Amino acid sequence: MAAEPEPEGRAAARPLLSDLYHITMALGYWRAGRARDPADFELFFRRCPFGGAFALAAGLRDCVRFLRSFRLRDADVQFLASVLPPDTEPAFFDHLRALDCSGVTLRALPEGSLAFPGVPLLQVSGPLLVVQLLETPLLCLVSYASLIATNAARLRLIAGPEKRLLEMGLRRAQGPDGGLTASTYSYLGGFDASSNMLAGQLRGVPVAGTLAHSFITSFSGTEVPPDPMLAPAAGPGPRVDLAACVEAWLERVCAHLGLGVHEPHRGERVAFVAYALAFPQAFYGLLDTYSVQRSGLPNFLAVALALGQLGYQAVGVRLDSGDLLQQAQEIRGVFRTIAAHFQVPWLESVPIAVSNNIDEEELARLAQEGSEVNVIGIGTNVVTCPRQPSLGCVYKLVSVGGQPRMKLTEDPEKQMLPGSKAAFRLLGSDGEAPPTPRWSPSRSQAPHVILGAHPTTHTHTGSLLLDVLQLAEEPPPQAGQELRVWPRGARESCTVRPAHVEPLLRLWVQQGQLCEPLPSLAESRALAQLSLSRLSPAHRWLEQPALYQVALSEKLQALVDRLSAGGAP
Amino acid sequence: MAAEPEPEGRAAARPLLSDLYHITMALGYWRAGRARDPADFELFFRRCPFGGAFALAAGLRDCVRFLRSFRLRDADVQFLASVLPPDTEPAFFDHLRALDCSGVTLRALPEGSLAFPGVPLLQVSGPLLVVQLLETPLLCLVSYASLIATNAARLRLIAGPEKRLLEMGLRRAQGPDGGLTASTYSYLGGFDASSNMLAGQLRGVPVAGTLAHSFITSFSGTEVPPDPMLAPAAGPGPRVDLAACVEAWLERVCAHLGLGVHEPHRGERVAFVAYALAFPQAFYGLLDTYSVQRSGLPNFLAVALALGQLGYQAVGVRLDSGDLLQQAQEIRGVFRTIAAHFQVPWLESVPIAVSNNIDEEELARLAQEGSEVNVIGIGTNVVTCPRQPSLGCVYKLVSVGGQPRMKLTEDPEKQMLPGSKAAFRLLGSDGEAPPTPRWSPSRSQAPHVILGAHPTTHTHTGSLLLDVLQLAEEPPPQAGQELRVWPRGARESCTVRPAHVEPLLRLWVQQGQLCEPLPSLAESRALAQLSLSRLSPAHRWLEQPALYQVALSEKLQALVDRLSAGGAP
Repeated sequence: MAAEPEPEGRAAARPLLSDLYHITMALGYWRAGRARDPADFELFFRRCPFGGAFALAAGLRDCVRFLRSFRLRDADVQFLASVLPPDTEPAFFDHLRALDCSGVTLRALPEGSLAFPGVPLLQVSGPLLVVQLLETPLLCLVSYASLIATNAARLRLIAGPEKRLLEMGLRRAQGPDGGLTASTYSYLGGFDASSNMLAGQLRGVPVAGTLAHSFITSFSGTEVPPDPMLAPAAGPGPRVDLAACVEAWLERVCAHLGLGVHEPHRGERVAFVAYALAFPQAFYGLLDTYSVQRSGLPNFLAVALALGQLGYQAVGVRLDSGDLLQQAQEIRGVFRTIAAHFQVPWLESVPIAVSNNIDEEELARLAQEGSEVNVIGIGTNVVTCPRQPSLGCVYKLVSVGGQPRMKLTEDPEKQMLPGSKAAFRLLGSDGEAPPTPRWSPSRSQAPHVILGAHPTTHTHTGSLLLDVLQLAEEPPPQAGQELRVWPRGARESCTVRPAHVEPLLRLWVQQGQLCEPLPSLAESRALAQLSLSRLSPAHRWLEQPALYQVALSEKLQALVDRLSAGGAP
Repeated sequence: MAAEPEPEGRAAARPLLSDLYHITMALGYWRAGRARDPADFELFFRRCPFGGAFALAAGLRDCVRFLRSFRLRDADVQFLASVLPPDTEPAFFDHLRALDCSGVTLRALPEGSLAFPGVPLLQVSGPLLVVQLLETPLLCLVSYASLIATNAARLRLIAGPEKRLLEMGLRRAQGPDGGLTASTYSYLGGFDASSNMLAGQLRGVPVAGTLAHSFITSFSGTEVPPDPMLAPAAGPGPRVDLAACVEAWLERVCAHLGLGVHEPHRGERVAFVAYALAFPQAFYGLLDTYSVQRSGLPNFLAVALALGQLGYQAVGVRLDSGDLLQQAQEIRGVFRTIAAHFQVPWLESVPIAVSNNIDEEELARLAQEGSEVNVIGIGTNVVTCPRQPSLGCVYKLVSVGGQPRMKLTEDPEKQMLPGSKAAFRLLGSDGEAPPTPRWSPSRSQAPHVILGAHPTTHTHTGSLLLDVLQLAEEPPPQAGQELRVWPRGARESCTVRPAHVEPLLRLWVQQGQLCEPLPSLAESRALAQLSLSRLSPAHRWLEQPALYQVALSEKLQALVDRLSAGGAP
């Protein structure tokens, strides 16, 4: 398929953004005459991140862009020739030069979908050699995107729907597009905006930002604005010397707050005036450069009241150090007093923004009932995902030439599910608990016998029950019909009767052709919030949640058992 | 300055890879007539990462590339116009369109230098507006690069000089150039190679890689190689059917190991043969797809011995699960037995490579005396730096219009040092301990009085004593001359008499012109190892190390005290 113009900028990944062993294996496949064997790979994770019970799927848009532009350039092939054995056949390099993804088919969870362990985020089918080469770029594009979206969703769950969440972690990211990815997918996961302009320009993420301490400290107080005159907000009317007006208001504010008029830092005030002259409609105060109570707050109030006199309303203040919750309460108290005293009611509700290494615990504190914090900026703790900085996705060969394949590891953590699969989400009724088979940490006793001792049957509709993985050729589960499945990790099967059945994997790219337009980022963001709202509260818990079940069909379970025992597929 | 061709590929960062508040501040500066005020910013970190006592400076090459290509494109300016107030003066956008870094001067620690808290990694001087705009991209380019280089250096210290360390974390990185940055700077920090081909192509990092489990599982055992014939390594001679030869060797190996000849997985063996036919000079076995002892190892041995008969020597085996150290010991034992029994001495020392979520603790185990592991692949734990996924660098305005500036935070963690500074590393004699002032967690008592009660004087040469920060205008410390300094965090001054003095910050870019070529990545890597070797062992400890001292000159300390007390600069 031909490369297309890219409204979101250059594709972030390119074919050589990959591990060398894919090329050595490619030579092995090619030499063995297997380059075009039809193969299926699945990309999935083994455990939900952060100790939670869910993840959000993300990164698909980047994968599709990557597939559509996948071509090795001459310089790429020359580089590969320099690292492969000197006697490598030239025909192999010709094969590489001609490669593209025109034979590749991609199924995937839509971005913003809930994802659970073992359920494929991507299914990639096509000629063995090329789909093998896609492994690392696809992992690179999906893993972090899904991790950051999930992290953002957790933070949104903690913050509740009302607080405005701002991502500002670009400088803490793993280089330039670590930051771009973080900004894009934290928005998908539920943040409101980002400080990252490139995410705004390329991805349409709303951007936000005001001023930093350096702006304040750059003013000593001796600077004279070239033009201190400001016209009223309402239009024609005499222009007013804002700086002089601010000085007059400062006296009144200080008198009311019991401060000496020389206590507030002059340089800070001159900086605020400079910012107000540039942004009279959007004046904003950063309060903690010198002292919040003795300088930042009175200076802000003097400027805000002077602007107010001209009909402008200040749009916010920000704190970046100290006890953020307590200071917000104190500041709101001062806003109320001043608003009442000077009869400027809008001042009461000027938004208070906070930042400073806010993590899940601090966010919970800031979002508690009665908190006066309105906007919360998070950098390091959204971008770096310090509780778990990698999702650990894997990309496994599940079938080649139509035959299921399985790595028989001695490490149970690394088990995988063979065969090309379909995946369905089963829904029951509201308030109905999902089936609860007896859990067994080891399957040493009669591990593969379907005990069926306590089958539970579900006949209701609404909430998510479980996800079912089955072989691609099996008929899909039917609403209202009983289905026997094997929950992963359980030693018993159970039966479910779903009220609704949703297929999970959508066909996005078929033989290199895009089948349907990808949803916009904002649509995916809405899907994420909708998806989370359908998950039961116990599955949404961020600590020690109830685990959401992923179950295998009887046929898939039988295949796993047969291959585990060393049998033929 | 003009953009130049970029042998390392497109600049990773671009001007809009930045936070919106830099643009709002830019408008503020411009409106206040201050866009061209000369300003100095410093980029530094406040605490060494990972609980250690050192960091390595890195990222400079990316910063220089960024500065040299810094230009806002029309599309960038249009985007900015869309997010700034609609009444913003067109002249401001003209100013942005004309911006470049021709007025910017950059001093920095060379890449691979030791870096300590508060010592600038970068000093950026130039017109206030433009150097403010550089903040976030420079932080983004330096922080992670320095973090990953430091992480890699720690892992190298643990592994010792002999083990081969391979970075393979691309798939765990924060998107595409998180991976490229990680591969580049883990090499700088002391790794030997990376799996990341793009790092090889763009940055000259040595690349390494062989095969993955998917290659093995893609073979069921029924596949027939198009051409199983292999010529001897030495040149002319009859070609041999490698597959048949392997089957013959398998019988002998299994008999010797007490295994049934049908136990080793046939598909795995056919995969090994396919790989051997593609890479006879570089045959490599991945042993743990099915069972190391009962399948992977005997299959590897059969192929290695068959190749050996033709004069080829296998180059390695890899394990990716289970107890890596113990298996390596067992495998080496088998290698030795087989080597003796079949009289193939080279087999004894075939390198054993291991991988599987190796962290500092596991690395120490694998590197212990007597370990048979030769090559160690690390992915997640080098790339994500899970012990501390962000270095937390900051970029602070230290001077404007020649006047020192300082944010007077109420949070002691966020303190900064004002004024444009010079930095020196003082060296004493080998075996001489650095000065040991009495440490005080609080400076509440007589905090600014130089007590000088127990000055220690140093007169020897060789090892690193401490770093000194002083005002740029002060004369540099002189070797052999006594100097009184204020170690940070200490309540007393002390005196040192350095045997040598090294200036730390080099001038790389002056008024937009590159002053000297940047060292190559390999040169910076060598500097990193040299720098670490000069650090005393107690400062190299990875847990609870002795802290390396950074001290202030008396003049700088006096300036800090004066500004902290609210005085004029």
